[in-house]
Amino acid sequence: MLRFTYPRRVAFYETDLAKVVHHATYLKYLEEARVDWMRQNDLLHLHAPEGKIVLAVLETQVQHLLPAYFNDVLRVELQVRLERSKIRFRYVVYSDRFQEKPIALGETLHFPLNESFKPTRLPEALWERLEKEIWTEIWP
Amino acid sequence: MLRFTYPRRVAFYETDLAKVVHHATYLKYLEEARVDWMRQNDLLHLHAPEGKIVLAVLETQVQHLLPAYFNDVLRVELQVRLERSKIRFRYVVYSDRFQEKPIALGETLHFPLNESFKPTRLPEALWERLEKEIWTEIWP
Amino acid sequence: MLRFTYPRRVAFYETDLAKVVHHATYLKYLEEARVDWMRQNDLLHLHAPEGKIVLAVLETQVQHLLPAYFNDVLRVELQVRLERSKIRFRYVVYSDRFQEKPIALGETLHFPLNESFKPTRLPEALWERLEKEIWTEIWP
Amino acid sequence: MLRFTYPRRVAFYETDLAKVVHHATYLKYLEEARVDWMRQNDLLHLHAPEGKIVLAVLETQVQHLLPAYFNDVLRVELQVRLERSKIRFRYVVYSDRFQEKPIALGETLHFPLNESFKPTRLPEALWERLEKEIWTEIWP
Repeated sequence: MLRFTYPRRVAFYETDLAKVVHHATYLKYLEEARVDWMRQNDLLHLHAPEGKIVLAVLETQVQHLLPAYFNDVLRVELQVRLERSKIRFRYVVYSDRFQEKPIALGETLHFPLNESFKPTRLPEALWERLEKEIWTEIWP
Repeated sequence: MLRFTYPRRVAFYETDLAKVVHHATYLKYLEEARVDWMRQNDLLHLHAPEGKIVLAVLETQVQHLLPAYFNDVLRVELQVRLERSKIRFRYVVYSDRFQEKPIALGETLHFPLNESFKPTRLPEALWERLEKEIWTEIWP
Repeated sequence: MLRFTYPRRVAFYETDLAKVVHHATYLKYLEEARVDWMRQNDLLHLHAPEGKIVLAVLETQVQHLLPAYFNDVLRVELQVRLERSKIRFRYVVYSDRFQEKPIALGETLHFPLNESFKPTRLPEALWERLEKEIWTEIWP
Repeated sequence: MLRFTYPRRVAFYETDLAKVVHHATYLKYLEEARVDWMRQNDLLHLHAPEGKIVLAVLETQVQHLLPAYFNDVLRVELQVRLERSKIRFRYVVYSDRFQEKPIALGETLHFPLNESFKPTRLPEALWERLEKEIWTEIWP
């Protein structure tokens, strides 16, 4: 089974004085992966600023298993599913430095808001895409 | 009961195109509060770069209840406790815009590493301080 | 003569692997000082999101003389003047670590845009305030 | 003549409430381009953390001509030359949204420091590479 994968090289400015990537930066990597998933599935035009919805972030969770260093090449794999009217993304982050061991596990939960920041319905194209996604409870 | 409180005004550069504070920024606010707690308790000299340990971040979790906007004055309240050799911080973030309703709940779990990034013992002064801290399971 | 001064403590996440504050962060400090100058002069309500103008950034310049470290207390001093329809801010950044030697010199040039990002006139209250400001060519 | 070019897509978290990329982020784009130039020229191992020098930033300058928006694909072109013992990079940033008009012009000046943050000599391989670089005063 092939999972959606987003590659990302660590920038110098993403490290901190402990010489590793700062933990807040991981949420940026997860967002980039999520946005890329939408882009590859031709869904990005539904989201602000081009589209009318914002997938507001309700919850984030990250577990850090191994550090990431400047110039490492990371890859973020993700899966996504509908949970009633919410969307859950689950992520596993790997690094070329540690091969098959994940360096971080993440989860974000989202809810669609309209332009006035009120809850709204999911666009149909997004709904349809989500129905086709495969979710594996035991992962990685 | 008076909880440790860290006040923080939202900067312009911390907002995103949805006009609210970006969710990754909350982990920075929690870190600032955590560092301030160490500073106020005269523990900061134990931590890198002045001291020899780093409180590595093992887990982070944030729940977002209400948005934060440019120029809002937030206050991060926190409690902290030892969990075996780990340290858990729990945070409640308030905003002057929403008064008594929290805008976010957070949690971070830490582990002391030495300068070579190996697990190490907690400095005694930190241990002693943690033993005196009060933790309330039901909060807020 | 008393210059406008904005104090700012360096956060952990603002450092990089060279153990000093990353140079891009200085533009954030200058922005915070500029915003605070507007706040103290009761001008912030004129600017987006509360007001209708944005002071777009046309140019930035920073000279780095000495490094800033985690937990240092910086102070950003500034002066500001009208240059035709543009506004120039000049900044000197000091650190408690180096006393009277500046650690950085900065300059930013701004132009008022309206909500559709078209050039617009300066709000009168801002104009009046700028006319009263004192500018010293030789500084510091 | 083919200039060194670094492509970069704008991330969501790099925008601010004015819906454009925040000006401090441009210095991060320039750094990424500079690092990529070193990487492509097999010079990155000379720089911290792998190598012993840090190319400290002495000066930065950015002129903003047009805005950058979420999801735009930017490309940073650069040229570089020795100025006595300093290294100057000059950058022109383009966007797929505005085709041949640059959206920003930048410049950064650097100086080699050793691990104790004292001035040091340029590594020979870097020196040799810089001697081969072509610099055009009138650009773009």
